[in-house]
Amino acid sequence: MSEPMEEIAPPPRLLMGPGPIGVDPRVLRAMAAPLVGQFDPFMTATMNEVMGLYREVFDTDNEQTFLIDGTSRAGIEAALVSLIEPGDRVLVPVFGRFGHLLTEIAQRCGADVHTIEVPWGEVFTPEAVEAAVERLRPKLVAIVQGDTSTTMCQPLADIGRICRDHDALLYVDATASIGGNTFEADAWNIDIATAGLQKCLGGPPGSAPITISPRAVDLIAGRGRVEAGIRDVNDDEDEGFRTGTRIASNYFDLAMVMDYWGPRRLNHHTEATSMLYAARECARLLHAEGVDHAVARHALHGTAMLEGVLGLGLAVFGDVAHKMHNVVAVEIPDKLGPAGGDAVRASLLDDFGIEIGTSFGPLHGKVWRIGTMGFNARKDAVLTTLAALEHALRAAGVAVPAGGGVTAAQAVYA
Amino acid sequence: MSEPMEEIAPPPRLLMGPGPIGVDPRVLRAMAAPLVGQFDPFMTATMNEVMGLYREVFDTDNEQTFLIDGTSRAGIEAALVSLIEPGDRVLVPVFGRFGHLLTEIAQRCGADVHTIEVPWGEVFTPEAVEAAVERLRPKLVAIVQGDTSTTMCQPLADIGRICRDHDALLYVDATASIGGNTFEADAWNIDIATAGLQKCLGGPPGSAPITISPRAVDLIAGRGRVEAGIRDVNDDEDEGFRTGTRIASNYFDLAMVMDYWGPRRLNHHTEATSMLYAARECARLLHAEGVDHAVARHALHGTAMLEGVLGLGLAVFGDVAHKMHNVVAVEIPDKLGPAGGDAVRASLLDDFGIEIGTSFGPLHGKVWRIGTMGFNARKDAVLTTLAALEHALRAAGVAVPAGGGVTAAQAVYA
Repeated sequence: MSEPMEEIAPPPRLLMGPGPIGVDPRVLRAMAAPLVGQFDPFMTATMNEVMGLYREVFDTDNEQTFLIDGTSRAGIEAALVSLIEPGDRVLVPVFGRFGHLLTEIAQRCGADVHTIEVPWGEVFTPEAVEAAVERLRPKLVAIVQGDTSTTMCQPLADIGRICRDHDALLYVDATASIGGNTFEADAWNIDIATAGLQKCLGGPPGSAPITISPRAVDLIAGRGRVEAGIRDVNDDEDEGFRTGTRIASNYFDLAMVMDYWGPRRLNHHTEATSMLYAARECARLLHAEGVDHAVARHALHGTAMLEGVLGLGLAVFGDVAHKMHNVVAVEIPDKLGPAGGDAVRASLLDDFGIEIGTSFGPLHGKVWRIGTMGFNARKDAVLTTLAALEHALRAAGVAVPAGGGVTAAQAVYA
Repeated sequence: MSEPMEEIAPPPRLLMGPGPIGVDPRVLRAMAAPLVGQFDPFMTATMNEVMGLYREVFDTDNEQTFLIDGTSRAGIEAALVSLIEPGDRVLVPVFGRFGHLLTEIAQRCGADVHTIEVPWGEVFTPEAVEAAVERLRPKLVAIVQGDTSTTMCQPLADIGRICRDHDALLYVDATASIGGNTFEADAWNIDIATAGLQKCLGGPPGSAPITISPRAVDLIAGRGRVEAGIRDVNDDEDEGFRTGTRIASNYFDLAMVMDYWGPRRLNHHTEATSMLYAARECARLLHAEGVDHAVARHALHGTAMLEGVLGLGLAVFGDVAHKMHNVVAVEIPDKLGPAGGDAVRASLLDDFGIEIGTSFGPLHGKVWRIGTMGFNARKDAVLTTLAALEHALRAAGVAVPAGGGVTAAQAVYA
């Protein structure tokens, strides 16, 4: 490599896919703030602030609420590898791609994993989950709240009650839904929930907020050890309260991560300062807006987008009564097929600078996913996307009513 | 939480510890650039650019050169969990804290780990490593180049030759050293090397560059599987070339991460875009400066700092002939003790806004570590730190020659 290179200069994009979405400019600015040292009083105070802010995001009193330094799937793995001991029975209700992901991560943790499934586009009834829990008696139930692959949002209050009644732990991946849909970690009896910044929280991918209930903390702390290179004479590898098998990962060892974020401040990884600033700003903005208001905003703009695509004569995939507020799956018209669907997406990107997505597995090439989330849950973003989509569809030979999308969305706003 | 909060406003700090250090303002600005979609042509082109840039950083032709989304220890774990199958014999030559870290991560991967040790402050001779390799016949030798806990920099060329002669794989953690000390992945026969941005590369923590040799790629690819949620009918779980045991981690499954960065672009995690921008800018600036010039710059300013602390009448810890260019371990004067050493650090931070560090384990409270790295490998930073240290020492009751530090450093620059 010998030529000089220019500084990064991304093309302007309106990101209306399933995420990541355009980041709030205030979050971008926060990442440009200078660093302080890892144990600077300002750093530890900021970490404590972030813990408090994410308690509000997750609606919890859990002391152990912090960030995993990695993308949202790092949060999932940290939760599962720290909870699951080899041979533990785990139940995963699967209603989309991310149920499959939970299954395979749990399998890699050595769990005895059992799944139940509903067709993509549906969610589970409490009865279906309860029957499986009674039959299998799992130590852990692992489920996503919103499976972005199908846009469905699983109601969790009953599932939390069922798990508590049967003494099962409950893990929830709230990456795709949190901030845009109601989430109540404590009221729903959730033991660990994890998330990401890049959806309704309006931040970049790369940091995974997590919250851990006291009973999950007890289980995990029993599996902890102090790292050899920082252990001192007062630490005893054989402390009597160490009861569980050692966690298979160092990076995702939540016992260690808790000791880093907690008052002992035992060095583990080096906290990703710029992403900490980003996570703080995402939650600060949510706090300033009010969580309930943010959820209502996502509901409003999600409804406008839904009515807009219907107004263009398109069909919506799945059980709309249970879709997340912040994303809609639109069936690609038969006459286009997967290649035509990709051509429409390419036209939106190349001609209008607007990104929408497709989906995974059985829905790849069958649906477009259009998001209205975070900073982009805005009227101008919704109307612009619908106007551009109308043109792209017509150019691809699909008959669409002139102005049908924008008009239908505006009726929602009126 | 009910009060409004202000935007992030870190206090000004001159970070002269062992890292993280002050980030180059150009890197901070790069992180504030807007996002594009995960499979946007600009995104994939940027990922490819980053692969090329880090080939230069690692001095390698390895196609598989990219980023792990996490801090530098995430890179270590990705390398070890992807290389090590349970029961594999691993040799870790330990010369500081991070050797202990490699040991414990390898143990968690199920390896049969053997260590050899030298006292903190020394490095290994090639003969010592060769004798252990001959005796133990490990599948993998895992070692750090620069162990930040002791400041020592282990010569690696002979160790690479020894590993190749005995058909052992070689993993190197270059986090603390790369960019400020010569590193030659290919010439030294290194199979996997990982790093971080927050030392000599002048970036924030949170992204871990990695490079993987073709023979390591072959081993890892044989352990890969396509994820269930994105597998299509053309993918076969039982493909005949899958020979190894499944990798115990999903997030750190390098077979999957290679398929995400490679031409198949199989979705895995959602790449941490802002950290990608940061990593690109770090390497772009190194490319513009020239790697050799950057190493020489670290040598110059490291020597000035070394001479400066000697000029203050302080003693330097360890085998100075083998210390990294970018950090020096200074013995805390006996009369201060650990508490007095902490008080001097607090005075530097509170009165001058300058951070220096202490160390871990047996060196905690025994040495200060003073860094001259990345953006802070600069004359003004060196001289300012020495001037402030002189005042802080005198205030703590340590007799120091007036101007002794600055004068000695200036003699290096003259």
